Amino acid sequence: MSRVIAVLGGTGPEGFGLALRWTQAGETVIIGSRNAKRAQDAAEKIRQKVGPQARISGQENVAACAGADLLVLTIPFEGHAALLKQLKPAIRPGSIVVDTTVPLAASVGGRASRTLGVWQGSAAQETAELVPQGVPVVAAFQNVAADLLNSDGPVDCDVIVCSDDAEASQAVRSLAAKIPGVRAIDGGKLENARIVEQIAALLIGLNIRHKGHSGIRITGLPPTAYNP
Amino acid sequence: MSRVIAVLGGTGPEGFGLALRWTQAGETVIIGSRNAKRAQDAAEKIRQKVGPQARISGQENVAACAGADLLVLTIPFEGHAALLKQLKPAIRPGSIVVDTTVPLAASVGGRASRTLGVWQGSAAQETAELVPQGVPVVAAFQNVAADLLNSDGPVDCDVIVCSDDAEASQAVRSLAAKIPGVRAIDGGKLENARIVEQIAALLIGLNIRHKGHSGIRITGLPPTAYNP
Repeated sequence: MSRVIAVLGGTGPEGFGLALRWTQAGETVIIGSRNAKRAQDAAEKIRQKVGPQARISGQENVAACAGADLLVLTIPFEGHAALLKQLKPAIRPGSIVVDTTVPLAASVGGRASRTLGVWQGSAAQETAELVPQGVPVVAAFQNVAADLLNSDGPVDCDVIVCSDDAEASQAVRSLAAKIPGVRAIDGGKLENARIVEQIAALLIGLNIRHKGHSGIRITGLPPTAYNP
Repeated sequence: MSRVIAVLGGTGPEGFGLALRWTQAGETVIIGSRNAKRAQDAAEKIRQKVGPQARISGQENVAACAGADLLVLTIPFEGHAALLKQLKPAIRPGSIVVDTTVPLAASVGGRASRTLGVWQGSAAQETAELVPQGVPVVAAFQNVAADLLNSDGPVDCDVIVCSDDAEASQAVRSLAAKIPGVRAIDGGKLENARIVEQIAALLIGLNIRHKGHSGIRITGLPPTAYNP
């Protein structure tokens, strides 16, 4: 697989952690940022951690997008629509857009343990309106704590993957399963992202209340449901 | 503790399972139903399963409510507000109302994997408007599969307990922890029930898609967060 993964907003803790894990897994990753220099610095930090064989680079967001097949959005909700409008002309046909965004109320000065109502139902469904026609959107990774991604240990969390495109969902599930500890679960249609996004706000509330880095595991499904 | 637990709608699978587990744990339980005979039959079934020492009986819903301190609502959302209006005069001061209800779209002929928007934010918050002043409402047990409650094994699921009343929340967490396998987690304010309720719809969708009896576990919190 010669795919290239662009992690847009990859200098933030969530994006950086995903970029780190995928680089460690041997994937080719571009960190995207508004600022090319910051993206390059973050990429260099990952190279130092992973070693000289790391296939990691840093570019400004639009350039990163233009050079990749798998675009992973890891930006706060307040920058979400604006970035997508900027990226749109650069998104290559055949690309997959992976949305990790959670519409936290913190985006408008509220609490990170509450969400905003998004007209389309979820941030990921909003994304589906803003990408070029035919580009599949996959919602995933909203519940994976950045602190765990950036630690050395396995990540004790399942990733529920929602998309209206079965092939794109499958590709993202296989990418999720490359993070040690993570199990990927097919969560069905993109519309279900509204629940998965809200779980992130619940987990943030639990982290504040109980001082932890919480995640979720789905129990009670047959083995075939995990990493299918 | 000489408390009496009334499980209203306890002839349904979720209520029956909770009544069974609490009776097994030595609690005093009344099964409530619209039909007193059906309630008594369900209680008898539990007695046969648990043994002659079981403190279980069956009554019509309002009578069950009048004789109990802990009222557990396990009725479908479409009967939720109507039952609460009926119960209101019978709710004793000092009682706690535990709401397990999920506003599934199935209530109005839609899918069980989708939820309805409830004006107050969640079924449990609607309940808080419908109980007598000063009666605390606790949201819990929405994500525990009825099939698991009615099986003989432990229940592989955490119960996230949300309430604006710390003491009532604590009482319900201790009740949750009496179900083998269950860990109770303080989920903060009642308003958070909106997310926990929606998780139930997600789990139903996963059950349909993957053919299982799913539940959730919250990972990454310190040991003090579980069954506190």
